[in-house]
Amino acid sequence: MSPSSPIVVLDSGLGGLTVVRALRAALPAEDILYFGDTARLPYGSKTASTVTSFVRQIIEHLRSYDPKHVVIACNTATALALAAVRPMFPDLPISGVIQPGAKAAVMAAGSKAVPVIGVIATEATVRSRAYERAICHRRHHARLLLRPTPLLVPLIEEGRREDDPLVRLALQQYLMPLIKNGLDVLVLGCTHYPILRSAICQVVGGGVPVIDSAEQCAQDVARRLRATGLARRQPDSDSVEQGTLQTFVTDDPARFKKLASRFLGVPIELPTWVSPDELYESRAPQARLLSVPA
Amino acid sequence: MSPSSPIVVLDSGLGGLTVVRALRAALPAEDILYFGDTARLPYGSKTASTVTSFVRQIIEHLRSYDPKHVVIACNTATALALAAVRPMFPDLPISGVIQPGAKAAVMAAGSKAVPVIGVIATEATVRSRAYERAICHRRHHARLLLRPTPLLVPLIEEGRREDDPLVRLALQQYLMPLIKNGLDVLVLGCTHYPILRSAICQVVGGGVPVIDSAEQCAQDVARRLRATGLARRQPDSDSVEQGTLQTFVTDDPARFKKLASRFLGVPIELPTWVSPDELYESRAPQARLLSVPA
Repeated sequence: MSPSSPIVVLDSGLGGLTVVRALRAALPAEDILYFGDTARLPYGSKTASTVTSFVRQIIEHLRSYDPKHVVIACNTATALALAAVRPMFPDLPISGVIQPGAKAAVMAAGSKAVPVIGVIATEATVRSRAYERAICHRRHHARLLLRPTPLLVPLIEEGRREDDPLVRLALQQYLMPLIKNGLDVLVLGCTHYPILRSAICQVVGGGVPVIDSAEQCAQDVARRLRATGLARRQPDSDSVEQGTLQTFVTDDPARFKKLASRFLGVPIELPTWVSPDELYESRAPQARLLSVPA
Repeated sequence: MSPSSPIVVLDSGLGGLTVVRALRAALPAEDILYFGDTARLPYGSKTASTVTSFVRQIIEHLRSYDPKHVVIACNTATALALAAVRPMFPDLPISGVIQPGAKAAVMAAGSKAVPVIGVIATEATVRSRAYERAICHRRHHARLLLRPTPLLVPLIEEGRREDDPLVRLALQQYLMPLIKNGLDVLVLGCTHYPILRSAICQVVGGGVPVIDSAEQCAQDVARRLRATGLARRQPDSDSVEQGTLQTFVTDDPARFKKLASRFLGVPIELPTWVSPDELYESRAPQARLLSVPA
């Protein structure tokens, strides 16, 4: 790998595009390969072994592009699979969205003796306790309120806007118990949620910082690449040429293209379709070797 | 296969258990194998080729049990995959949920010149136009109102009850446009929806028949088995011994067991876990044969 190698960003579907958007702002010259596992989404209600197997397949599939960094741009996949896939690819730097989000939450909590930090996320992310570990590692005296909010992704994927009465009611139901408990900071623990950011800010009130794990993740990747000398050197002129974005999906490319601009802010080219069968076949050579009789 | 062979019922997740419940009422002596593809659910936002590939794998996986009938207990999978998988398994009777639901809707519409028949279903089922074809084949002069209702499955899977304000508001939003257009009959075009049946009946009003595709599907299977002499002979006594129910899932068995009783009406044993890898490996022998050099 070299500074000219691409960054791989993977997610169960569309949400990780909010990370791509932040990455393109932070590192405009980088080429990005984005993989949305739309045939098997969502990951948020599934188990660690299932999600780890999906993430491993995707990384194996994209290794031939010689990426310099892999971003797991999905809170559920970070919570359930990051620690398990790192040793499977020892030469490949892999990072996620949870540590950067947790770090920013602790900083935002400031000097209060026992701050109340709320995290809204999928059922699987909450169950994994990954945010609890990441936050308490940095700040022992914090009160954590974790709230699974499983309807927010389907509400966003249905294309509902922030002023939709159903979106408003769901946010009220999910967030009021946190607010009543004296919320100081709120973490958006799912890369879909920035889409509803302003409605969420309205419900929690102006005094509560709302941490976007997608944004924090992009800043973290930029720091890592600069620290290892793998960031693309940017020309001295003001007009940096924007890096390329190539997308891959396991289900309907047309549907993905249609919905992507809401997450990315700009339209995309039609994604390349990768059949889930191909992901299993990436493993075929090893599997065959193992099954050769002694 | 023989009358003592089991019936296979497959679905993306839990919804098909409403078909199992109806089957166990209609054919209490039958043994049932239920497969819930929970690692890859939901099917309702995915494409025909993806869903067909999943359904084919599941049928291949359960063929070793020598089933006498396969029920695709999911409207999306029936709409997208039934016609494609039938020729792949020419000796195996396979039926779905759409034709029985369409037939019952036409009967319920009675003698009205141009009845208004509403269908609520997943995005993929609506897009497939399978209900339109099935209903118009039986009744040329009907006005069809098809409405994708993608939030109902997540609302049900989150465990929300019929009196939850969010469930009420979603049903109002989805059903009011149908009611304003003079709805005569409403088809529940997803096997999850019977869980919200009484709330749906309240919204559409007592005069509108609500057709449960799960119930109609079970009656259809009973007719088919009796017509081909494959139904289990029931003893003359009143106390029929209940057939067995064995369940298989591709993700967390404990979560499935916990949620299953709401759909089935009774608790189940812990399901057998089938890894998605195994489903791909069912195809391995043929794949190896094809890859042998000439």
